[in-house]
Amino acid sequence: MSGISGKNIELSIFGESHGKGIGIIINGLPPGIKLDFDYINNEMQRRAPGQNRLSTTRKERDNFEIISGFFNNKTTGTPLCCIIWNEDTQSKDYHSIKNIMRPGHADFSGYMKYHGYNDYRGGGHFSGRLTAPLVFAGAIAKWILQKQHIYIGSHIKSIGHIKEHNFDWVNIDDKHLELLNTKKFPVLDIEVGKKMEEFILSVKKEGDSIGGIVETAITNISPGIGEPFFHSVEGMISKYLFSIPSIKGVEFGAGFNITEMKGSEANDTYYIDNNKVKTTSNNNGGLLGGITNGMPVVFKTAIKPTSSIEKIQKTIDIASKEEINLSVKGRHDPCIVPRVIPVIESVACLCILDLICERNGAEWMI
Amino acid sequence: MSGISGKNIELSIFGESHGKGIGIIINGLPPGIKLDFDYINNEMQRRAPGQNRLSTTRKERDNFEIISGFFNNKTTGTPLCCIIWNEDTQSKDYHSIKNIMRPGHADFSGYMKYHGYNDYRGGGHFSGRLTAPLVFAGAIAKWILQKQHIYIGSHIKSIGHIKEHNFDWVNIDDKHLELLNTKKFPVLDIEVGKKMEEFILSVKKEGDSIGGIVETAITNISPGIGEPFFHSVEGMISKYLFSIPSIKGVEFGAGFNITEMKGSEANDTYYIDNNKVKTTSNNNGGLLGGITNGMPVVFKTAIKPTSSIEKIQKTIDIASKEEINLSVKGRHDPCIVPRVIPVIESVACLCILDLICERNGAEWMI
Amino acid sequence: MSGISGKNIELSIFGESHGKGIGIIINGLPPGIKLDFDYINNEMQRRAPGQNRLSTTRKERDNFEIISGFFNNKTTGTPLCCIIWNEDTQSKDYHSIKNIMRPGHADFSGYMKYHGYNDYRGGGHFSGRLTAPLVFAGAIAKWILQKQHIYIGSHIKSIGHIKEHNFDWVNIDDKHLELLNTKKFPVLDIEVGKKMEEFILSVKKEGDSIGGIVETAITNISPGIGEPFFHSVEGMISKYLFSIPSIKGVEFGAGFNITEMKGSEANDTYYIDNNKVKTTSNNNGGLLGGITNGMPVVFKTAIKPTSSIEKIQKTIDIASKEEINLSVKGRHDPCIVPRVIPVIESVACLCILDLICERNGAEWMI
Amino acid sequence: MSGISGKNIELSIFGESHGKGIGIIINGLPPGIKLDFDYINNEMQRRAPGQNRLSTTRKERDNFEIISGFFNNKTTGTPLCCIIWNEDTQSKDYHSIKNIMRPGHADFSGYMKYHGYNDYRGGGHFSGRLTAPLVFAGAIAKWILQKQHIYIGSHIKSIGHIKEHNFDWVNIDDKHLELLNTKKFPVLDIEVGKKMEEFILSVKKEGDSIGGIVETAITNISPGIGEPFFHSVEGMISKYLFSIPSIKGVEFGAGFNITEMKGSEANDTYYIDNNKVKTTSNNNGGLLGGITNGMPVVFKTAIKPTSSIEKIQKTIDIASKEEINLSVKGRHDPCIVPRVIPVIESVACLCILDLICERNGAEWMI
Repeated sequence: MSGISGKNIELSIFGESHGKGIGIIINGLPPGIKLDFDYINNEMQRRAPGQNRLSTTRKERDNFEIISGFFNNKTTGTPLCCIIWNEDTQSKDYHSIKNIMRPGHADFSGYMKYHGYNDYRGGGHFSGRLTAPLVFAGAIAKWILQKQHIYIGSHIKSIGHIKEHNFDWVNIDDKHLELLNTKKFPVLDIEVGKKMEEFILSVKKEGDSIGGIVETAITNISPGIGEPFFHSVEGMISKYLFSIPSIKGVEFGAGFNITEMKGSEANDTYYIDNNKVKTTSNNNGGLLGGITNGMPVVFKTAIKPTSSIEKIQKTIDIASKEEINLSVKGRHDPCIVPRVIPVIESVACLCILDLICERNGAEWMI
Repeated sequence: MSGISGKNIELSIFGESHGKGIGIIINGLPPGIKLDFDYINNEMQRRAPGQNRLSTTRKERDNFEIISGFFNNKTTGTPLCCIIWNEDTQSKDYHSIKNIMRPGHADFSGYMKYHGYNDYRGGGHFSGRLTAPLVFAGAIAKWILQKQHIYIGSHIKSIGHIKEHNFDWVNIDDKHLELLNTKKFPVLDIEVGKKMEEFILSVKKEGDSIGGIVETAITNISPGIGEPFFHSVEGMISKYLFSIPSIKGVEFGAGFNITEMKGSEANDTYYIDNNKVKTTSNNNGGLLGGITNGMPVVFKTAIKPTSSIEKIQKTIDIASKEEINLSVKGRHDPCIVPRVIPVIESVACLCILDLICERNGAEWMI
Repeated sequence: MSGISGKNIELSIFGESHGKGIGIIINGLPPGIKLDFDYINNEMQRRAPGQNRLSTTRKERDNFEIISGFFNNKTTGTPLCCIIWNEDTQSKDYHSIKNIMRPGHADFSGYMKYHGYNDYRGGGHFSGRLTAPLVFAGAIAKWILQKQHIYIGSHIKSIGHIKEHNFDWVNIDDKHLELLNTKKFPVLDIEVGKKMEEFILSVKKEGDSIGGIVETAITNISPGIGEPFFHSVEGMISKYLFSIPSIKGVEFGAGFNITEMKGSEANDTYYIDNNKVKTTSNNNGGLLGGITNGMPVVFKTAIKPTSSIEKIQKTIDIASKEEINLSVKGRHDPCIVPRVIPVIESVACLCILDLICERNGAEWMI
Repeated sequence: MSGISGKNIELSIFGESHGKGIGIIINGLPPGIKLDFDYINNEMQRRAPGQNRLSTTRKERDNFEIISGFFNNKTTGTPLCCIIWNEDTQSKDYHSIKNIMRPGHADFSGYMKYHGYNDYRGGGHFSGRLTAPLVFAGAIAKWILQKQHIYIGSHIKSIGHIKEHNFDWVNIDDKHLELLNTKKFPVLDIEVGKKMEEFILSVKKEGDSIGGIVETAITNISPGIGEPFFHSVEGMISKYLFSIPSIKGVEFGAGFNITEMKGSEANDTYYIDNNKVKTTSNNNGGLLGGITNGMPVVFKTAIKPTSSIEKIQKTIDIASKEEINLSVKGRHDPCIVPRVIPVIESVACLCILDLICERNGAEWMI
C-alpha cells in the first residue's frame, strides 16, 4: 500500500528528490472549486527552504504544474494530478555516496526494502522534498475546511530544551490560528521564540542539528466525527503524521502528561454554555472514544534533529562492508521544525477532511 | 470504516458491553494452524479484570466461542469468527444513567455520532471490554510471530510520577521479553514496581485513579518491513494503538525526548557485527523512513487515568440539560495500565503480522 | 481480502455450512433504523429451501439472531452482527466424502487454496447456505433504499432454452417490481413461466439439473452515482454478484446483444420530458461511463445448473488419486434460479447503497 | 474511490483527453525489474489509433514519459508514475459542443456527477484515450507474469452477427496465445476474420459503427488464487473490465450459454493426468468458488458499437434544453473491438498479478 491513503479524499504520492519530479494525485475533490494559487503558493513557501537564516540557504522553487482534474480555473471532480519538477539535479556526482549509509536517514532500511535498487540520490523517495506535494494537497484541504469555518494553526512548543507554554486548549481563537499561519517562526511567547532561534544558530555553528515539538490546534469540527475502532481521529491523524520524515511521537491533548494526572484532574467536566455542550478543561484534546466532542482538537508532534550534519559520524559502506567516517556536506537546515509545521497542518487537514466526508458525503464540500 | 482494519490480516470487531456478546472476525489467517487454547486463554487472562488487589474485584470469565474458520482443531483459512458471550447483564437498571454524560468517557461524543441511539449500558461499543476480542486475535498473531522467532514484551515505564528506566534498546533479550509476559505487574526494577503498586492503592483509597506509560519492544523483525508514505510502521502501529480506549500518546524510540538531542547524539551510527548491520544506539526505535532496520522496534504508549471514579465530578444530563454531581459507583480499576499491556501487544502483533504478510505473502505464515 | 467488502456499507461474512453457524457483520448502517423483522424474514424466506415442488424438500429455518448493533428495536450505528445458527449438522458421516472432488463445486479449488484444511462438510464456506446472511443484510439495504423511493425487482428471463421477453427497459413501474417480489416464480409471461416449471420438473426426474438467467431492474437512482474508473456501477455490481455461487456471467442493458447492434441503434437518444432528461431507449441499462444517468439500471445474471446431481459423474479421490463414479445424493434443487433471485437483489442493493453513500454521506440514509 | 484500484498492485489513473496529459501511478511493483521499452511500446501500439483501414486515420503517438520509480533502467520499487502527454489539442473549438449530450457517451451522466465542471473536450476523463496508461501498466504486469510462465491472449469472437468458434478451453497453447498477440485483427478462423473486416468497412460507409465480442484466455495460473466472497477472480476481473469504456457484459467459461446446459453437461469432470488434476471440459472457465482450479481462465467481454457516429441522431442541448440533430464528425473507429483487446488483456493481467501477490507476497515477482 505504498503511497496511497484516504477513503474519501485519496492521495497517491510519487517521485524522487533527484529524479524528474515529485507529485501527487488527489481523488475525491469536489467539482467547481476555484483554486486560489496565491493561497497555495503561500502555503508551499512556508515549507520551502531558504526562508531565513535558520534554514538552509538552498533556494528551491516549488513551482507546481497541475496536469489534470482542473479546467477553466476550477476543479473538475476527476483526479487532480500535480507535479513539481526537479531542477539542476544532474550537476552532482552522487555515485560516490551510493553505498554510504547515512545515520538517521532511511538509507539502510530503504536499501533492504528495495534490494538496493531505489534511487539513492538526495534520499530519493525518502527525501523531505516529498512533503512539497503533501503541502500542495493540504493547502486545498485547508481552504475547503476554512470555507466551513474549520481553522488550523500551530506554534513551536519547544526547540531542544527550550520550551514555551501550551495553547489554551479550551479557548482557542480562530483569528489567532490564522495569525500563526503567517509567521515564519510561530510562537506564543516572543521572548522564548528569540531564545529558540539563538539556540538553533549556536547548534548550526557546531555543525550539528536540533529537533523540537510542534503543537497544533483545529477548531470548530462538529462533534461526532471519527470511529471508535481502527479509524479513531487520533489513529488516523497519527497514520498521516508518521508519513512525514523525522516524526517520532504524537500525543493528543495532555498526551504523555495525562499519565501523571489523577482521574479527577484529567477528566474534562461538561457544562452547558449557551445551549452548547462544552468542557471546562480539554485534557483529551477534543477527542473521546476516537470521536470529536466539539472542543478544539489539539495534538503535539515530536520532530527529531536533522539527520544530515557536518559533524563527523561513524557509519558503514554497504558494498565494501567497511566502517568509515562521514561528514554530510551541503546546506542543510540545522533545525527542520519551522518548515515541518505546514506539512503537519497539511496532512492533518487532509485527514480531517476525509473523516468529515465519511459522515457528510462528498457533496458537503461544495 | 467503523470496526474493520488490516489488509492481509483483516479484523472486524463488533459488540456492546451489555448486549448479547462481543466478538471479532479474523480474515487472512493461514489454514492448518493448530490453536493452543491454553496460550490464548493465558493472554486473555492477562487482560481480564479481578487479577489482583490493584484491579477491580469484578470477576469476568472471557470464555470465547469460535463460530467459524476452525475445524478439526485447526484453522481452515476461511474467516474465523470468535464470540465472547456477555453474562449477568440484565440485573442493573441502566435507564437512570442513560442521559448522564460521564466525564472522560465517550458518552457525549458517541451520543452526537449516533444521535443517541447507541447502547449506553456500560459504555456499549466503547467499553474497555471490547478489547477482549482484540486480545483473542492478538494471541493468535503473537503465536504465529513467535514461530518465526519474533518476540514482543512490555514493562510499565511509569505510574503517575513514579518512573523506571527504559529497555536497553540495543540489547533486548527474547527470553526477557517472554518472562515479562508472565508477570501481572511487569517492571524492570522491582523496587520501583513496589512503589508504583503502593501509589495505585493510595489513589484507590481516595476514590480516584491514575494513568501510566507502557514501553513495548519487538525483536527480530527483518529489515525492510513498512512503507515510506502513509503505511509507515509507526503510522500503522499508532492507528491500531489509538483504537484502545484511554490511549493519548504514542512515541517510537526516544520519542519526544529525541527533540532535546542534537543530531550527533540522536543519529544511530551503523557498524557491522558478524556480517550483520547494526546500530550502536537505537534512538529511532528500529524504524527509519517508516521501515524496519533490523534493530528492536521500541515504542511507548501513554494511558490516561481510568475515567470512572467515585470522587464526585460535575457533569450534565443531556436530556434535561441540567448540571449534576456524579459519583461513578462500581468496582472500577484505579489504574488500568497493567491490563492494557496485553491489548497493546495484541494490536501491535496484528499490525506487524499484517505488514510482514504484505512483503512475504500469506503463505509465509504456514 | 476474503469475506470483506464495501466502503461505506461494509460487510464481513463468515461461517460454514455444517459448522456452528453462519453470519455477517454490517458496518456503516445509520443509527435509529427500526428493523422490520417481518420484512427481513420474508426476504429470507424467498431464498430458503423447501418453498415449493421445484425446490429441495429440505426444510431449513433461517432464524437469525442479532448479536450487536441493535438496541431498543433500532440500529445503534455500531457494527451489526447477525448469526444464523446451524442445526442438525452432526448426524451425517461426512468423513467418507472428504476427499471426493465433486464436479462443478469448489471442492478442488478450495482444497488447493486451503491446503486441505477447509471444512468440506456440505461445501463448508463455499456452501450456497452462505447466501442467507447476504439476504439478511440485503433486506436492510433494500428497505433503506425503498424509503428513498428506489425499487428493485427481477424476473426469470430463461430456464434452459425456454425464454421470455425482457423488461421494458424504459418504462418500469415501481409497483410491478414490488409485485414481482411477492412471487415464488416471478415471470412476466405466465404461460412461459408454466413451461419453465414443467421443464424443471422433467429435468429433476432425470436426476439432472438446469440453469437460467435472471433479469433485474432498479428504478429511481438519481443520475451521477458511480465512478469512471475501477468503481463503475457495472464493475461494483459485478464484483458483488460474482460472490454468489453459480454465477457465470453479468451483462448490463442489452449486454452481449448490443454487440450485434449498430451505433445508430445502440445509442440511447436523449429528450426532455417534463424538465427531466430521459432516453428513448435504454440499451445501456441506465449506465454510461460507469455512472447512472437516471434511467432504470437493468442487468442480467447467468446462473449455472445446480452442481449437485444424482446422475452418475466421473471424478477423483484427491487422497487416493483414483478415479471414481459419483452420484450426489440428497435433496438438491434441480434448478436454483428462483432462490438466487433474492440473493441477486440483496447484493445489488448493498452495492448501490454503498455507492450512494459515497456521494451523499452516511447521514443521507437517516 | 475514483481512479484507484488494487491491493498489492495499486493503480491510480488521471488525466483528460484534451488536457495536458494522461497517466498512471503504479504502486507495488517489485524493485530491480528491467523494463523492456520495445515490449511496452509494442503493447501500446496495439491499442493506438491509425493502425489500419479499419481504424480511425488519426495518428497518435502514445509516447510515454516515466517520471518516478525508475532508476538506472530498472524499477526502484517506489511508486512508478508514467505520463503520456497530449499534443495538438488546442486547435479545435470545443466550446460549441460543450452542452451537446452525445448519445452513448458519458456526457450526461458525467455532467450530472460533476455538476457540469468536468472537462468536456473529447470526452475528458471519460475518453477512450485514458486506456493508454492502462496498457502501459498492463504491459509491465504481462511481462512479469510471462516470466512466471503465465500467458494471456485473445481473439475476436464476433463482430456484429458474424461469429467464429471459441478457444478450445481445455487445450490452449501458450505459443498460440503469443502469436495472437502479434496480430492486428486476431481471429482463430481467417475466413471468418475476412468477413468481419468486410462488415466493418460496410458499416463505416454508412457512417455507422458496430460492436463485437472478445474472448480471452490466461494459462498456467496455479490453483488456489482468488477468494470465495467479494474478491472472486470473476468479480475482480469484472471490476477491472468494466472500467474500460464501452464494455457491457462479461462472462466466464461457457457464460450465459451454461444456463442452457444440464448439470451433467456443465459440470467439468476431474481426472488425473501425469499426477496433475485436470478437467475433461472447462465450462467453468478455470474458476470454481471464485478460485482458480489450474485450468485455463477463459472469459468473454461484450463491446458496444462506437458511440461516435456520423449518422444523424437526435439529442439535447443541456443548457438551452432544446432538442437538436447531431452528426459526430471526426475520424472515429467504425469498430473499436481490435483496439480494445490489449486493454482487456492489460487490466486482466493487472488484476491477476494483484491476486497472485496476495497469496505469494510482493517478493514473488522478483
